[in-house]
Amino acid sequence: MKEVVAGRLGQDLPAVAVIMAGGSGTRFWPLSRTQRPKQFLPLAGTEQSLIRITADRVEPLVGKAGILVVTAENQKGLVLEHIPHACILAEPLARNTAPCIGFAAKYILQTVGDVPMLCLPADHVVYGTPGILAVYREALALARTEDALVTIGIKPDRAETGYGYIQRGEAFAGSHQPAVPAYAVAQFVEKPDMQTAQRYLDSGEFFWNSGMFAWRPSVILREIARLLPGIAAQLDILESSLSQHDSYSKAAAAYAAMEGVSIDTGVLEKAEKVIMLSGSSFSWSDVGSWSSWSDSVLAQNPNAEDNVVQGEVLLLDSSGCTVVGGKKLIAGVGLSDLIIIDTEDALLVCRRSQSQDVKKVVDKLKAAQRSDLL
Amino acid sequence: MKEVVAGRLGQDLPAVAVIMAGGSGTRFWPLSRTQRPKQFLPLAGTEQSLIRITADRVEPLVGKAGILVVTAENQKGLVLEHIPHACILAEPLARNTAPCIGFAAKYILQTVGDVPMLCLPADHVVYGTPGILAVYREALALARTEDALVTIGIKPDRAETGYGYIQRGEAFAGSHQPAVPAYAVAQFVEKPDMQTAQRYLDSGEFFWNSGMFAWRPSVILREIARLLPGIAAQLDILESSLSQHDSYSKAAAAYAAMEGVSIDTGVLEKAEKVIMLSGSSFSWSDVGSWSSWSDSVLAQNPNAEDNVVQGEVLLLDSSGCTVVGGKKLIAGVGLSDLIIIDTEDALLVCRRSQSQDVKKVVDKLKAAQRSDLL
Repeated sequence: MKEVVAGRLGQDLPAVAVIMAGGSGTRFWPLSRTQRPKQFLPLAGTEQSLIRITADRVEPLVGKAGILVVTAENQKGLVLEHIPHACILAEPLARNTAPCIGFAAKYILQTVGDVPMLCLPADHVVYGTPGILAVYREALALARTEDALVTIGIKPDRAETGYGYIQRGEAFAGSHQPAVPAYAVAQFVEKPDMQTAQRYLDSGEFFWNSGMFAWRPSVILREIARLLPGIAAQLDILESSLSQHDSYSKAAAAYAAMEGVSIDTGVLEKAEKVIMLSGSSFSWSDVGSWSSWSDSVLAQNPNAEDNVVQGEVLLLDSSGCTVVGGKKLIAGVGLSDLIIIDTEDALLVCRRSQSQDVKKVVDKLKAAQRSDLL
Repeated sequence: MKEVVAGRLGQDLPAVAVIMAGGSGTRFWPLSRTQRPKQFLPLAGTEQSLIRITADRVEPLVGKAGILVVTAENQKGLVLEHIPHACILAEPLARNTAPCIGFAAKYILQTVGDVPMLCLPADHVVYGTPGILAVYREALALARTEDALVTIGIKPDRAETGYGYIQRGEAFAGSHQPAVPAYAVAQFVEKPDMQTAQRYLDSGEFFWNSGMFAWRPSVILREIARLLPGIAAQLDILESSLSQHDSYSKAAAAYAAMEGVSIDTGVLEKAEKVIMLSGSSFSWSDVGSWSSWSDSVLAQNPNAEDNVVQGEVLLLDSSGCTVVGGKKLIAGVGLSDLIIIDTEDALLVCRRSQSQDVKKVVDKLKAAQRSDLL
């Protein structure tokens, strides 16, 4: 029988890390598949998966017993393979981040208490763990002492059009003065065009929206109740059914009745008290495509040709190429700005500037019902 | 024990087709390998190999019993797989075409008699069999009646820098007047630059040197004796040893003593009586690279995107690409002018204009002693 909860959180935790692992990651096809989304791939330059690295990074703050992963029901086993000590909440349906975070908040409140929760995407790449841990610590401290929503903005180092931005407001002043810059939020803004991104960069007032947050369960649930009452009502049903017989099918009914909405647009953009911490002493990427992944690898390991290679690769007269192979030799001659990803049953060759279009290949395969390749 | 001759030619043959299959074909890596050179690949758009198609094409003129293949000793088995009815001469060493043709001439003279021999490379592509058979027929007829070397020139349809050229001289006049244009040869010239190739094309006097010839064994052996006496002396030793015990090691000694020289530079360019037949009613390519192979396929099967695909291939927003796969799906996004060749143990991605540089990959693999991939 399917269960909503697997494992359990520890007692007397100072905080809980909520790792959101709901993504399907079609943009990393053919390496990512329905049964192996991006967060389970070793995309951070080591043999470990992104989700495992995310859990390990935050362990100094919450302990092994403070890792709560929210994922799709059919990925529970995969999560346990990667993080055997995780407590897992299984979502019957994908409904974006507001239901996911609301569910986690209810569960933490019920089983641990009103301790700060640090919400982290499972599939981002961070280089510079000490730097980001310092920011996490301050985020948790603020969440503990303030009745506020804390979000982490990343100080941009380039005019990037692939991220949403947060414009900072006045400097934050409170009883706990954080050791990293903290601000009120003036506004959240969508992904800009290049000209606007350059203006954002030049102004010094705009930060990348990292999708990393901290708050107490009681605070976020209060805001969800105020701003997303439909979801709040289903979360109440979900909470009361957790200890009942057949909790999974009741959770499935509650999820089916919730609308899919992100915590950003559903809550943060309308909330009254949002504090943004400025992260700048680490390198962060949401690795949304093979191209941005390549950029993140090159930032750590620059080379004259801007090539990124994994596996046995022989490149002649080639630059700007990302080649990820497996067991076979891959030879490239005279190539520029290509992504080449070779797997057992599928090979992708893609112009680097069109790596977002990998999704179109996946769409074609879906239309052709090639589930063996999805 | 290794043998120089496998099989036997028929009796009372009107002519013999000598198929020269000595090439190693590194330029078609990774599909071609040391153990599977280009002539054994199905590169003419059907499932049959180039060498088999070459043999079948000429069968109406010489019969199954008139096919003589000259190849490397270690490829004898492969030739028999492709042409079970072939008579095979095994060369102990590769010594270019003059020794190869001289050896074949000696063998034909000894076993069949002084009948015309039509010498054909095993690894070229021809579209338009009736047209080329008409030229072959005239070549054999001239070889039968004239004490001359007959070579086949191809009327160019473009300024091609990849071939050697033959400049025609005066129109041929003899007792047998061929049904296709025939000329004396003014000169043989090397591969030209683009400007020169354009001038050749405009003049109407220059023809591609196809490497296809016809003559009687006695005539070519007379010319070899006159122009390449060192090779002629070894050919005499080779001939006398054919019926002896341990003929292979004697042949190996004779081959080792011969210099490697082509019949073109060693004989044809210096011979007194050379007749060139003009081939124009068929399409011919020496398919010297993946790029020229692609051109030859596109000439037969044009499409708006100039893509050539084999296997399960999904191309989006791509043009000028050649994709040859096997069992796996190959997806291409936003590609232009690339060659992609996927095999079990090696993948090549190459800018089309650099497909000659595939040889550099092979050289690197040789230097790294990766015989598993050669």
